[in-house]
Amino acid sequence: MKKILSVILFAALCLGASAQEITWHNAEDLTILGKALPTAKTYTRIDTTVYKFDNKTVDHYANFSTGVAVVFETDSHVIKARWTTSSAAYGANMNPILQKGLDLYIMKDGKWIFAGVGRPYTRKAPYNKHEGTIVSNMADGTKQCLLYLPLFDRVDELEIGIDEGASIKAIENPFHHNIIVHGSSVTHGASASRPGMSYAARFGRNTGLYCVNLGFSGQCKLQKEYARYLADLKDVDAFIFDTFSNPKAAEIYERYNEFVDIVRAAHPGVPMIFLQTERRESRNFNTATEKSETEKQKAAEEMVKARMKTDKDIYFISSEDFLGKDHNATVDGSHPSDLGFTYMLQSITPKIQKILKKYGIK
Amino acid sequence: MKKILSVILFAALCLGASAQEITWHNAEDLTILGKALPTAKTYTRIDTTVYKFDNKTVDHYANFSTGVAVVFETDSHVIKARWTTSSAAYGANMNPILQKGLDLYIMKDGKWIFAGVGRPYTRKAPYNKHEGTIVSNMADGTKQCLLYLPLFDRVDELEIGIDEGASIKAIENPFHHNIIVHGSSVTHGASASRPGMSYAARFGRNTGLYCVNLGFSGQCKLQKEYARYLADLKDVDAFIFDTFSNPKAAEIYERYNEFVDIVRAAHPGVPMIFLQTERRESRNFNTATEKSETEKQKAAEEMVKARMKTDKDIYFISSEDFLGKDHNATVDGSHPSDLGFTYMLQSITPKIQKILKKYGIK
Repeated sequence: MKKILSVILFAALCLGASAQEITWHNAEDLTILGKALPTAKTYTRIDTTVYKFDNKTVDHYANFSTGVAVVFETDSHVIKARWTTSSAAYGANMNPILQKGLDLYIMKDGKWIFAGVGRPYTRKAPYNKHEGTIVSNMADGTKQCLLYLPLFDRVDELEIGIDEGASIKAIENPFHHNIIVHGSSVTHGASASRPGMSYAARFGRNTGLYCVNLGFSGQCKLQKEYARYLADLKDVDAFIFDTFSNPKAAEIYERYNEFVDIVRAAHPGVPMIFLQTERRESRNFNTATEKSETEKQKAAEEMVKARMKTDKDIYFISSEDFLGKDHNATVDGSHPSDLGFTYMLQSITPKIQKILKKYGIK
Repeated sequence: MKKILSVILFAALCLGASAQEITWHNAEDLTILGKALPTAKTYTRIDTTVYKFDNKTVDHYANFSTGVAVVFETDSHVIKARWTTSSAAYGANMNPILQKGLDLYIMKDGKWIFAGVGRPYTRKAPYNKHEGTIVSNMADGTKQCLLYLPLFDRVDELEIGIDEGASIKAIENPFHHNIIVHGSSVTHGASASRPGMSYAARFGRNTGLYCVNLGFSGQCKLQKEYARYLADLKDVDAFIFDTFSNPKAAEIYERYNEFVDIVRAAHPGVPMIFLQTERRESRNFNTATEKSETEKQKAAEEMVKARMKTDKDIYFISSEDFLGKDHNATVDGSHPSDLGFTYMLQSITPKIQKILKKYGIK
């Protein structure tokens, strides 16, 4: 008798569960944002079979899904995801969610509001297969969804899980204009808490401007190969450059003008906004860092300001307040936390908007 | 000839290196902060051979070095650390530095200023042995140092590395009074960027008050066994309670008064400050979470306010502004980032200070 009851209970549970069956949709069929040029692999920000970088790390990073996002519309009550990345181990100064995870924002009253995260698998190597529920128990109705992909890994496959019978479809890019943000790990997104919290992504959500993330952690040293890639881009409305964190002072002096020459030749009249490198918290007690960072900042300011004399579309934004005044804004002395990026955005947003407004970009 | 030159070069390099030889000191000889009662194991916040918890996870967390810090004075130009933890894998919603790492603050002009982090090993399991340079190239002079230990692991051994010939010695606890902070993962520190960025630690550094972290991630449900532990503490000046994030509404109704009875009997007249649970960002679109969280908040407010009618030393702090207004303040919908903890501290600090002032605590 007990056994029969168990079977009935099991059948009932199965029936109950079937009401919440999930169907999986390949995200390739949805709208993919965040790539400055088309790529053969869907979630790769730069196609390294076309653009070969003279540095294995740059090549590696170019294949990341940094800044790449999927937008779609669905009437599902639940949104799940399963995705694959590389098997790389996690780094120490970033949250696994930032490195290999996802975060979702849903449009509500004209704003992108945080809805949930896709947690990557962390228990045992290899860390390459991930699956999770991002948000559940949502109210009826159609939602516009913006799902950011990992900032520090590549994505090979991505499926979105929704209620069986619910619809999911691509929508137009909800952002306008075309802002290219090129820089160091700070632009790349280290060490925000989740992919959609990089300053480029937040600036985009806050302003409605389409921002493409070309941050290359530790590898953004005014190399000519980046300049040539940027020169190949079409219809760029503005460049934001965070190019003074990685090179030494001598490299800034040596490379800055040629870098600008290449980009400017391809994009006459396009505003190029150079951000000074942040005042690193690692300077607080390290006298060697204090010296080298002071030299870098001096080189950056000198080179940009000299160039501004002959190019009225070049701008320089000082960094005094990028990390606030509390010495608490970085994870490790160099990489802003969400707090640091909040201070930075409070500083740069009105300044950048004022510049862009002159060009009719708002 | 080449070989001879290589040998000379190697010898020269070795001589150069010897000028920067490091000596290692067992941190057990320094001043250990953050334990409400003595423990047999140095870096364990609660001695679970004395206090047995009726829950394996609580027992596990009790052995963590959460909130434990080492203070010392040194004239070294460099501070290194090597330490061992458990082999546990890293969790998804926290930075490895927070989970198994260290962070150092140095006293400067009367303030604890961030100096650097000890990065835990993350490349390959087991993740139990760590070593790193926290800060180097410091100026001459004696520094007072405050080194926080991992928030989400235990520490078995810890050595501090300094310049050969430099001094290192214990100093008195630089904090005053005795504030016990007991709560959920939010108190535990999830998901700050590094150990010293939990709100309890930041409140302590900002005010000079000695704050002991008794946060138990997901396990803080007004259990009697916590109340009994808290009742055993001596010379407590105030309690801060974040006890409404983990229990269900029914558990709050059922357990709150008995929890307070036990603590109050042992600590007559001591202020007990109850923080309302934060408004979780996971409520943004999840209607089930919206409902259960609303019920929890209602239960919490009702129970504390009812008790306040008969106990003038009980206080309630509302949480409307704990996570700001930008919906960006958590890592995953529940756990504040450094940004979330900054909003929370902006909200609670003046309110708690106003209460404590009535008791001569400032």
